[in-house]
Amino acid sequence: MQEKTLWSGGRLSSDIDIDMSALNQSLSIDKRMAQEDIRGSRAWAKAIAAAGILDETELGQIDAGLAKLADDLSAGTFPFKPEDEDIHSAVERQLTAEIGAVAGKLHTGRSRNDQVATDFRLWLKSNLEPLQTELRALQAALVERAESDFAVIFPGYTHFQQAQPIQLSHWWLSHFWTLERDRDRFYETAARLDVCPLGSGALAGTTVPIDRFALAADLGFREPAPNSLDAVSDRDFAVDFLYACALLGTHLSRMAEALILYSTAEFGFITLSDRFSTGSSLMPQKKNPDSLELVRGQAGSQYGRLTALLSTLKGLPSAYDKDLQEDKRLTFAAFDTAILTLKVMRGVIATLTVNADRCRAAVNADAYATDAADYLVRKGMPFREAHHVIGKLVKRAENAGLPLGNLTLADWRAESELFEDDIRSVFTPEAATAARGAFGGTAPERVREQIELAKKRLRQRPNE
Amino acid sequence: MQEKTLWSGGRLSSDIDIDMSALNQSLSIDKRMAQEDIRGSRAWAKAIAAAGILDETELGQIDAGLAKLADDLSAGTFPFKPEDEDIHSAVERQLTAEIGAVAGKLHTGRSRNDQVATDFRLWLKSNLEPLQTELRALQAALVERAESDFAVIFPGYTHFQQAQPIQLSHWWLSHFWTLERDRDRFYETAARLDVCPLGSGALAGTTVPIDRFALAADLGFREPAPNSLDAVSDRDFAVDFLYACALLGTHLSRMAEALILYSTAEFGFITLSDRFSTGSSLMPQKKNPDSLELVRGQAGSQYGRLTALLSTLKGLPSAYDKDLQEDKRLTFAAFDTAILTLKVMRGVIATLTVNADRCRAAVNADAYATDAADYLVRKGMPFREAHHVIGKLVKRAENAGLPLGNLTLADWRAESELFEDDIRSVFTPEAATAARGAFGGTAPERVREQIELAKKRLRQRPNE
Amino acid sequence: MQEKTLWSGGRLSSDIDIDMSALNQSLSIDKRMAQEDIRGSRAWAKAIAAAGILDETELGQIDAGLAKLADDLSAGTFPFKPEDEDIHSAVERQLTAEIGAVAGKLHTGRSRNDQVATDFRLWLKSNLEPLQTELRALQAALVERAESDFAVIFPGYTHFQQAQPIQLSHWWLSHFWTLERDRDRFYETAARLDVCPLGSGALAGTTVPIDRFALAADLGFREPAPNSLDAVSDRDFAVDFLYACALLGTHLSRMAEALILYSTAEFGFITLSDRFSTGSSLMPQKKNPDSLELVRGQAGSQYGRLTALLSTLKGLPSAYDKDLQEDKRLTFAAFDTAILTLKVMRGVIATLTVNADRCRAAVNADAYATDAADYLVRKGMPFREAHHVIGKLVKRAENAGLPLGNLTLADWRAESELFEDDIRSVFTPEAATAARGAFGGTAPERVREQIELAKKRLRQRPNE
Amino acid sequence: MQEKTLWSGGRLSSDIDIDMSALNQSLSIDKRMAQEDIRGSRAWAKAIAAAGILDETELGQIDAGLAKLADDLSAGTFPFKPEDEDIHSAVERQLTAEIGAVAGKLHTGRSRNDQVATDFRLWLKSNLEPLQTELRALQAALVERAESDFAVIFPGYTHFQQAQPIQLSHWWLSHFWTLERDRDRFYETAARLDVCPLGSGALAGTTVPIDRFALAADLGFREPAPNSLDAVSDRDFAVDFLYACALLGTHLSRMAEALILYSTAEFGFITLSDRFSTGSSLMPQKKNPDSLELVRGQAGSQYGRLTALLSTLKGLPSAYDKDLQEDKRLTFAAFDTAILTLKVMRGVIATLTVNADRCRAAVNADAYATDAADYLVRKGMPFREAHHVIGKLVKRAENAGLPLGNLTLADWRAESELFEDDIRSVFTPEAATAARGAFGGTAPERVREQIELAKKRLRQRPNE
Repeated sequence: MQEKTLWSGGRLSSDIDIDMSALNQSLSIDKRMAQEDIRGSRAWAKAIAAAGILDETELGQIDAGLAKLADDLSAGTFPFKPEDEDIHSAVERQLTAEIGAVAGKLHTGRSRNDQVATDFRLWLKSNLEPLQTELRALQAALVERAESDFAVIFPGYTHFQQAQPIQLSHWWLSHFWTLERDRDRFYETAARLDVCPLGSGALAGTTVPIDRFALAADLGFREPAPNSLDAVSDRDFAVDFLYACALLGTHLSRMAEALILYSTAEFGFITLSDRFSTGSSLMPQKKNPDSLELVRGQAGSQYGRLTALLSTLKGLPSAYDKDLQEDKRLTFAAFDTAILTLKVMRGVIATLTVNADRCRAAVNADAYATDAADYLVRKGMPFREAHHVIGKLVKRAENAGLPLGNLTLADWRAESELFEDDIRSVFTPEAATAARGAFGGTAPERVREQIELAKKRLRQRPNE
Repeated sequence: MQEKTLWSGGRLSSDIDIDMSALNQSLSIDKRMAQEDIRGSRAWAKAIAAAGILDETELGQIDAGLAKLADDLSAGTFPFKPEDEDIHSAVERQLTAEIGAVAGKLHTGRSRNDQVATDFRLWLKSNLEPLQTELRALQAALVERAESDFAVIFPGYTHFQQAQPIQLSHWWLSHFWTLERDRDRFYETAARLDVCPLGSGALAGTTVPIDRFALAADLGFREPAPNSLDAVSDRDFAVDFLYACALLGTHLSRMAEALILYSTAEFGFITLSDRFSTGSSLMPQKKNPDSLELVRGQAGSQYGRLTALLSTLKGLPSAYDKDLQEDKRLTFAAFDTAILTLKVMRGVIATLTVNADRCRAAVNADAYATDAADYLVRKGMPFREAHHVIGKLVKRAENAGLPLGNLTLADWRAESELFEDDIRSVFTPEAATAARGAFGGTAPERVREQIELAKKRLRQRPNE
Repeated sequence: MQEKTLWSGGRLSSDIDIDMSALNQSLSIDKRMAQEDIRGSRAWAKAIAAAGILDETELGQIDAGLAKLADDLSAGTFPFKPEDEDIHSAVERQLTAEIGAVAGKLHTGRSRNDQVATDFRLWLKSNLEPLQTELRALQAALVERAESDFAVIFPGYTHFQQAQPIQLSHWWLSHFWTLERDRDRFYETAARLDVCPLGSGALAGTTVPIDRFALAADLGFREPAPNSLDAVSDRDFAVDFLYACALLGTHLSRMAEALILYSTAEFGFITLSDRFSTGSSLMPQKKNPDSLELVRGQAGSQYGRLTALLSTLKGLPSAYDKDLQEDKRLTFAAFDTAILTLKVMRGVIATLTVNADRCRAAVNADAYATDAADYLVRKGMPFREAHHVIGKLVKRAENAGLPLGNLTLADWRAESELFEDDIRSVFTPEAATAARGAFGGTAPERVREQIELAKKRLRQRPNE
Repeated sequence: MQEKTLWSGGRLSSDIDIDMSALNQSLSIDKRMAQEDIRGSRAWAKAIAAAGILDETELGQIDAGLAKLADDLSAGTFPFKPEDEDIHSAVERQLTAEIGAVAGKLHTGRSRNDQVATDFRLWLKSNLEPLQTELRALQAALVERAESDFAVIFPGYTHFQQAQPIQLSHWWLSHFWTLERDRDRFYETAARLDVCPLGSGALAGTTVPIDRFALAADLGFREPAPNSLDAVSDRDFAVDFLYACALLGTHLSRMAEALILYSTAEFGFITLSDRFSTGSSLMPQKKNPDSLELVRGQAGSQYGRLTALLSTLKGLPSAYDKDLQEDKRLTFAAFDTAILTLKVMRGVIATLTVNADRCRAAVNADAYATDAADYLVRKGMPFREAHHVIGKLVKRAENAGLPLGNLTLADWRAESELFEDDIRSVFTPEAATAARGAFGGTAPERVREQIELAKKRLRQRPNE
């Protein structure tokens, strides 16, 4: 007679309280890594066979049984049962159903503690790739916009007040570099998790004399974990991942916020595609940037997941404590959110319309004030004094209800004799952007150079 | 021909991007408040009928149609469709299917903005009651333990070092009062959310001249919200709820931590029921307090939800922004976690065994050091000096490898002439607990008094 | 010879590691509650004198000595020493310096555990009042604006897209009600913390037969804590306070965000006073809303404090653990932030200029679309159909590059025969606001009513 | 006449509101990076001189002036003034006082936006080194303990229930590897921040034709930032740092928790040095592990800082918003906490006493249950069946009130005929540890190997 759980029927009965069971079960979450569990078990079977625990027939039976289960899972015919405590229990139970008592040899020298750590790492390892691909796709969309919107100039903001005119391409690219750091973080996460816990037993190491280097290699890991206690206890890789998702969420939220504002009637710089907008049940005119608001809002949820796992880990004393069970729920949710928000953001960016005329027209005359100060600097005035002089002229224009560029030469010269008629030439977007010609600035040739740099980065780390 | 969404077919098409749709849909979450949505709609129909928007026939049709939908929902036969954007859309779509075009009159003067705020409040209002009942049940379980374990004395700890002997009942009751504050918070949450947003329209108020006081009363709310902008924007009640759950989680985590330690082989004060324990897939002897670890770990997840909603709300500028959509997912998850962890904690407490002998035997002689100092105080020595004298005696005993109570009278008198043979009488648990006789202390009569106080509280606020 | 710490010289020496000392000392933080510590000690002296521990002379000496220390503190002449571990140690040390060995009697039956809990509650109790006063002052400033800006109409937003015209007064008042809930929370915090821990000893209760009800009353508390373990362990009041500050911060951030956007060149609804703006070191034209950005940013720091204390408390097992030491640093910082941001927000609001003409001019014709649908409803069309018709007309106007209000009657009638020439009358801000006449709406008489309600609330809970 | 702020006297007056000033000033925080500010300014002077803005005389004056200020700062004689808005303002003001109007040329083409980003990165760059040194020192202390405690065997725990005997050295080393990942993270943070923002101007790039590669190299940065908008906006490096500190805090909290439990009377595995313990003001016997509790508690504060900065950054739309001001306060506090807790943890570990006899004696007979199952596996029984058999024997021993090892051979054979007299040989700590001989296990030769691996890591990345 088979027991309901992997541990019942000996010291403990499996007849646990119904609420306890609801809190304790993890199958609804961890079955997402069923294939990884089987992959790990097949490698484990090979490892313990090499160590003499299984003979060749047994290994063959177990491997074939596991292969069958993998197929059933793919086909959606794997028979999960309500009493399956977790994915490991489900797989061992079903393997026994398939091949009989020899299945009971598979768990020799292994614990669910090292098993779940291995499954979880395998899952994340293979899922970081599609995530990087999505990240890269969003970066590529930004580069495309930078190329197609190259001629567009619009106001640059600090404190969300107009500061200086910039190329829209320069703005798109600023988000490229932000995401490039996100790619870094996911690469680092991938590198740090590339360590195999399997063969660590419950906490003290396995009693089966397996070759953990060969086992790690078989599963595609760089190396085996050097300390069995740390191996079953370590969830740094999950926190690293949640953190990388939280910061990615932050970056997307900042991009979303700006685009939401740029799409208001008052700014009017961009128009979202209807495919990424929704309407109102009450107000017939409404076209709302729900896509961007949802992206922005998800950052909060990503922070919540990071806070949750950090708080959960705090002060956990022993090699494995059941508190860790939440790690997968949080990680899977963060992953799904990251993927979906990246896709939506890419769609929004690829399909929006830039209103180039409104962009250019929106630049205030005041946004050239620094250029006017630079004019004085070029004539020898110390910058701090030039700043002061232009500040007074801004005030003068404000009091007169005029744009700064419309002051008369007399007005200009009332504050400094250095002004001549050519002061008016600073008041064009082209002059202002061209003037920012040092590396990394908004001058067109620099933005062109930046586009090339960005493309080179995408080529160097293709994720494909 | 019916449109897919409540807003499509006019200005916008409903043909939105597939990823956008996945991010945007909320039906999978908000269908949990389907009955509240219908309840709100029936009240709204009455309100706009009274204002002349519906005639009696129309009201009858709409009300009957909604009643039918409510029955279908209860029966599990309500036909949700993949294209239903949210529960409001599903209900209006299905109502139209049931009663035809007249269903299109129901949304007059109403927006999903005030509708969702109303549904959400209704849901929380009715679900706070079972939560309070669970809280109270856990408190009752603590009082029962306080009564049944009345004779048990065990070490009290500060810094998890033995401090002074206490009654176990006193410890159980300490958690009663903690939970009593949680009940307070949920009552406050209930009171603060008891305000009806319906009739606020999208943001500016409704154009239908309805009686919002009558509408609020019809739905069981204390009063209508006084400002339509705030009414659709306010999610304080959800944050209040998440906060109350987070602090409840903290309290349960502290109780769980202590019980986990008390159930170790090294402490041995309690033995958990098998019904709240699990075993190991590898180690046959294991009986693990997974129930308590899961309760402890869930505190982290509750913090995460609070962090998520606070962060999501931060800086939202307008009456309604789509970022708010996460509010229900977080609230429902927090609710489920709170209910389940309360039930499991109650089960753990009701079924555990107290090992009274080990409890008593665990009290160290050092735990009477304060009583020894009090002995000197009673003989006139200032407390600070007495503290010093006893500290030296503790050191002396430690150096001699003896329990403090086993020092000879000569030892005692070497530090102070005030000691006489009766110093030994302070070294009993009964003397030590009896000495803490001021209100709130661990003296048996005080604990008895506390039990009565606790029972009175439970009677005063019965939640039933 | 006096020992450096309250506990050294007996079992332990005070010669602790220098880094440990730096981590362990709390004087730099907790000296902020020095007066509360002395107030608590004077009450304690009276209580233990009544219980026979001090005779009248001793009580007189101790009380006079403590009064002297209180004066020294007020005068800034209290001689703190580098080796003072905390405020309690500093006070006892200095009291001994003032009155000699009798000072050593003061700590009889008391622990720093109940002492610090009492000091902390006393501090918060007395500081919640000025906080409520600031909150109320900000609310009063909002009511003043609501009165002085009564005539101003501007666009109401959802999803930060124009929705419907509203009175600016209505918007100001929406924040009044938000803050009213904050006041509620601080009142609840005040009520919940109004419980006296003093007389709970280290954890088990005091051995001195004091009257804790009299002691509580003497210190102005409603009642003594009913369980000594809970009394020294409970920090709910601090978390409640941090939570109330976090939600207040959220509310201020939302107000700040909207005002930042309203003060951009593109919206131009308001102009901040120079007194709440700063400039740029580089760009002479800049006038930045730093005040509002700082207010918005502080919400994040308040969340951080809440997260910090919740995480710190999680899983703490015993009555008192030293982890609690962070509670005061976090609470004091949250308090200072709350007070300062409230003051700055009030200053910003009281001094900003509303640009009424730009407000009115900013309302788009599309913002009347709901009113146009209501027009059809009044003529008998079901709302959902009317929504559809108007949506098509919005689209038609958009395609024609015209404001909705500028369509010809033929255009209108192309979609519905129900339109007549009076459709144009819906396109005025006054008509639109007047139409929202149900309770809580933006109709002028409703806003007037709301102002009176708000004033009544301020009178009912004056905090003065 | 000199203006109070860098921006006043032109468009704006500096006469700002007093509360606004208190909220706005950052000097109290950012003066900590005064030397970095001067270092950045000296490099900037060279860069703009090379671009023709300064002649050699001017460069000489400015450089000498800045050198003087650096000396004044080191000497503590730099005259900060109450009206200094921030460190940049203070330095420019004082430079003007030293060298006159030529100082006004220094800020040409530069903004405080790129300046503060540069200072902040320089500060973190140079302070990551001492932090890594402290981390490494703690790791070295763990390796020392692993060597000196090599002979000690004690219970290994999962779920804080005894699991299997392990070497104490193995436990010490498990924390070595945890910290090794922390070192990784700080290295990554260092690498990612090694990018120079200077020369990005306010947001759009500088108008001075400087060589940003030379400038970056001059300041010791790897490269200049490739996009000026991102350069002034990016605070990823600060969040990365806070995250690395939060996870380090988590690791320290876990180590602290275990050591706190190991130092209880009930476990008794270790005794803390008095130098890292404190006493009680009331209870003379107390010796509390405050050092470890404070370390554990600080994890919460580190989480709070991370939450704070993430939340603050969320949704910030433009290149620079004043909300960012909190970044330095949070970073400096996290740094101080990290350094201090590392030092204290190292002190605790280096000075504690291991009670080897109690460690060994604490191992329960049940902890050999897995070894007993392995015994059956070696005799050919499938592991799952062996697990079941041993479970029953554990139950049998429990019912008989006997340790598992004290069952009679008849008892053993009642469950399986495979047992023979040599089953008793599995019940020794040495046999159990020796059996875990695969890589990473607790077998002595493996732990020895691990010590060498750890030493190699310390040599490879010396931080010195």
